[in-house]
Amino acid sequence: MVVDTATGREVGTAVWNYEHGTEGVILSRDPNLARQHPADYVKGTEVSLRKALANARRRVREFGPEQVIGIDTTGSTPLPVDARGRPLAFQKKFSKNPDAMAWLWKDHTGVAEAEEITRLAASIRPQYLVACGGVYSSEWFFSKILHCIRTNPGVAQHAALWVEIADWIPAMLTATETPESITLGICAAGHKAMYNEEWGGYPDREFLGQLHPTLAELRERMKFKPRTVRHAVGGLTREWARRTGLQEGTPVAVGAFDAHLGAIGAGISEGALVKIIGTSTCDIAIAPDDRKLPAIPGLCGIVRGSVLPGYYGLEAGQSAVGDIFNWFVSYIRPDGKKGTHALLAAAAAKLKPGESGLLALDWNNGNRTILVDQRLTGLLVGQTLYTTPAEIYRALVEATAFGALAIIQRFEEYGVTIERVINCGGIAEKNPFVMQIYADVTGRPMMLSRSAQTCALGSAIAGAVAAGKRAGGYDDFSEAQRAMTGLKTRVFTPDPSAYAVYKELYQVYRTLHDAFGTSQWQGSLSHVMKQLIEIRNRTRSRLS
Amino acid sequence: MVVDTATGREVGTAVWNYEHGTEGVILSRDPNLARQHPADYVKGTEVSLRKALANARRRVREFGPEQVIGIDTTGSTPLPVDARGRPLAFQKKFSKNPDAMAWLWKDHTGVAEAEEITRLAASIRPQYLVACGGVYSSEWFFSKILHCIRTNPGVAQHAALWVEIADWIPAMLTATETPESITLGICAAGHKAMYNEEWGGYPDREFLGQLHPTLAELRERMKFKPRTVRHAVGGLTREWARRTGLQEGTPVAVGAFDAHLGAIGAGISEGALVKIIGTSTCDIAIAPDDRKLPAIPGLCGIVRGSVLPGYYGLEAGQSAVGDIFNWFVSYIRPDGKKGTHALLAAAAAKLKPGESGLLALDWNNGNRTILVDQRLTGLLVGQTLYTTPAEIYRALVEATAFGALAIIQRFEEYGVTIERVINCGGIAEKNPFVMQIYADVTGRPMMLSRSAQTCALGSAIAGAVAAGKRAGGYDDFSEAQRAMTGLKTRVFTPDPSAYAVYKELYQVYRTLHDAFGTSQWQGSLSHVMKQLIEIRNRTRSRLS
Repeated sequence: MVVDTATGREVGTAVWNYEHGTEGVILSRDPNLARQHPADYVKGTEVSLRKALANARRRVREFGPEQVIGIDTTGSTPLPVDARGRPLAFQKKFSKNPDAMAWLWKDHTGVAEAEEITRLAASIRPQYLVACGGVYSSEWFFSKILHCIRTNPGVAQHAALWVEIADWIPAMLTATETPESITLGICAAGHKAMYNEEWGGYPDREFLGQLHPTLAELRERMKFKPRTVRHAVGGLTREWARRTGLQEGTPVAVGAFDAHLGAIGAGISEGALVKIIGTSTCDIAIAPDDRKLPAIPGLCGIVRGSVLPGYYGLEAGQSAVGDIFNWFVSYIRPDGKKGTHALLAAAAAKLKPGESGLLALDWNNGNRTILVDQRLTGLLVGQTLYTTPAEIYRALVEATAFGALAIIQRFEEYGVTIERVINCGGIAEKNPFVMQIYADVTGRPMMLSRSAQTCALGSAIAGAVAAGKRAGGYDDFSEAQRAMTGLKTRVFTPDPSAYAVYKELYQVYRTLHDAFGTSQWQGSLSHVMKQLIEIRNRTRSRLS
Repeated sequence: MVVDTATGREVGTAVWNYEHGTEGVILSRDPNLARQHPADYVKGTEVSLRKALANARRRVREFGPEQVIGIDTTGSTPLPVDARGRPLAFQKKFSKNPDAMAWLWKDHTGVAEAEEITRLAASIRPQYLVACGGVYSSEWFFSKILHCIRTNPGVAQHAALWVEIADWIPAMLTATETPESITLGICAAGHKAMYNEEWGGYPDREFLGQLHPTLAELRERMKFKPRTVRHAVGGLTREWARRTGLQEGTPVAVGAFDAHLGAIGAGISEGALVKIIGTSTCDIAIAPDDRKLPAIPGLCGIVRGSVLPGYYGLEAGQSAVGDIFNWFVSYIRPDGKKGTHALLAAAAAKLKPGESGLLALDWNNGNRTILVDQRLTGLLVGQTLYTTPAEIYRALVEATAFGALAIIQRFEEYGVTIERVINCGGIAEKNPFVMQIYADVTGRPMMLSRSAQTCALGSAIAGAVAAGKRAGGYDDFSEAQRAMTGLKTRVFTPDPSAYAVYKELYQVYRTLHDAFGTSQWQGSLSHVMKQLIEIRNRTRSRLS
């Protein structure tokens, strides 16, 4: 996306579909495996930059590629590289080996290793878990590397380093990808590789060595001091200037994850929660880093500078939102041909809060925040002999809103006030019905980010700040955000009478949430969902 | 139905549709109101008897109406009668007044009165509640009468007596319907009018008088000693012999409720549970009355002689079984056109116990036994993003099986052993899938009653016993049942490996059952469903 630094307007856009795998993802028999081929990143960068510039030229008469003053990219997916910084998958012997490719964020092959890391940290380095919600995820850096070391040492021993794609692309564009000179972003380092200045950076050698000697060796080469997105990694090389039509030396900013740059693009500031709502959600808030923030239990990540410099970046999320509605429509297929999202939402919108007598838990895909427990499942209660699909659809939407409120309350319990919510993503834009319920449930205004591409916009803002004011950009983010971000005019404000009913319903939700999700009292039902999963897994393993 | 006393074979049948109301039921704006017009009983008796005899004559060459040796009928629905025993609705001024008609079993207009009776009994006559599960129902005798007294005294003051239809039809056929001479059945008296020899028959005058003076006056006229179905009320009158083609003086047995006569028709004996499975279930067991039976909490009724003489008749039931499956198919309408009972059952039958990870509570219409609580609702837990309609359908079937097992366990906890289950009704006959799950969940063989009309067959058996051996019938029920009842050859036996998994799942069901249905521990969730109902009712009342 090419963005006007004066207004944040999209000047040009382009999409290029990855050529490898199934819709860009390399799959296998193992449903946990999801990889991408790094060749797609190289060609994708070239083609999409060229096409976006061409698109901008077509749309804006006065546009020329020399006007592009800064560049940035998003992630998150780590890949193994050799001593020269080149992806292992570019070597002929590894070109078809998925373990040598990029391990996509949603690759879950390292489940056992993630549990091992969590266990070891809990026993000898509990501080490591505090900043990541108490559980180290299979989606994260060391789980993936350790899994590769354990299951494919042939690939692992050739990896001089593992680099996050949001760091690797800027390095490629600026020819700084050799392991010694590379500049890493704090976002990936802090949220996924346990980097924290409090304990001297990455996890220590002893800790990693207890997991595997190869990890300890790797740690020796990780002498980086990751930076925030306000920094430039370097300038565009002559080679990449030629390949894209951009000017040589154009600053390339430090990369960060999509949600974190999305929060910038949505205009995040203190008091705001940015919700990027899709199949799941990513919820981002910030808090000034001039005072020490208490550990907030259950958050996925608390990382100084991961969103904006000068602030802690706080990441939370719901494991499924759109996915739950999609499950109901696509798997249950209620109401014959009338069971579309549009028709169910229209019928559900006519109902009043509490009218159905239904209540659901939004855990069909587990609970990322605040329980950090993937072994939780969905629940629906209150069905009669007359319960309708529209009532269930509304109960599912309300459940995700209650889940959102639980996250907001957790923030506030630890001193991070959330006064308003800025929503991005397809569901936020296309479903006023959903947004109104979110406002009525949380008692807070729901705003919509003006851009439909907030992550790319945030990335462009980082590029503009890396370029600086003298080059036509900005010297700080607040100035850049003021100029380049905005909200849609429609704001969903809470209806007081609906809010009153939802306050009561939320208490019931919270009762079930705590009963099934925590073991804080006698007679807790926290074993129920896990027991069902255990019986299910046993039955399925007998069948296969 | 005309039945061969030697074999139990159906010789002739007839159906006559009531002429009043909607499909025979008089309705109003009040969804709780359900009445029938007694004129339908008179015409129905005449027409259906004549048609059944004609049908028998067509089917069996050697048949003649003079071969009919005994008659009986089922209920249960009370109606107000005048001093001559004639229904008030037969008086011109009352002919269109629903309160003067018969108050159908499922009429729930007396909800408030039922609560009042339960409260008063709990406070001054706790023993009255012991035999009826702790709660006096709005479907029962005094709730209906008290509601009529309170809301329509004009009708109530004209009622010399209220008579159960299973008693009124035999009285009509034998011209013994005047209040002084009428013979009542113990089934209706014991299960619905709190009749028990232990406290001298019906509830005492003081108790009824505290509810309303008119009830106390009514009590003065209720000097009956109700009888079991082995007794004849009298002989068919000349008038009814003429109207039907039967012989004058043919013995008419004491009437009883459909389920209780159904249990006889299904061949009930000690150790057997007869389940009459339809939209809901009625579960009947018996226990010898030569020793005092302990009070069994949660049963709907424990009445000496209500099924067979010499035994306590024990009544339990599930508030919804077929209704829950019907709700899923008809209201949720899953899976487009593939969402029929047959296709869902076929897909669900392919699943293994525990494979879906789902568990449901069978409370969409409350819980009749063992919790006796209509303010409970459905619950489904274990949903993922891939849960299918067939998995939910199976979970709902399993939930009703778990509910059935909870009833069986309650019987056994109090010394009434249930070794086998005899099932009747459409679901039992048409769904081997359901029956196999019931066998696997309960660990007991599921048998099927041979007759598709077990209630009518039981009624015919009572007629044959009332007639006696000399007339070509039987002198006792066990002999009559041996000759006239039978089982289908197909028996569903528990699969040991399925039973093992269901044993585990039942523990989880029982955990949820007790957590949501009882308040026996701290942190109980027994308020959850009631709170949702309370919020729902408040919202709906604001809307209307």
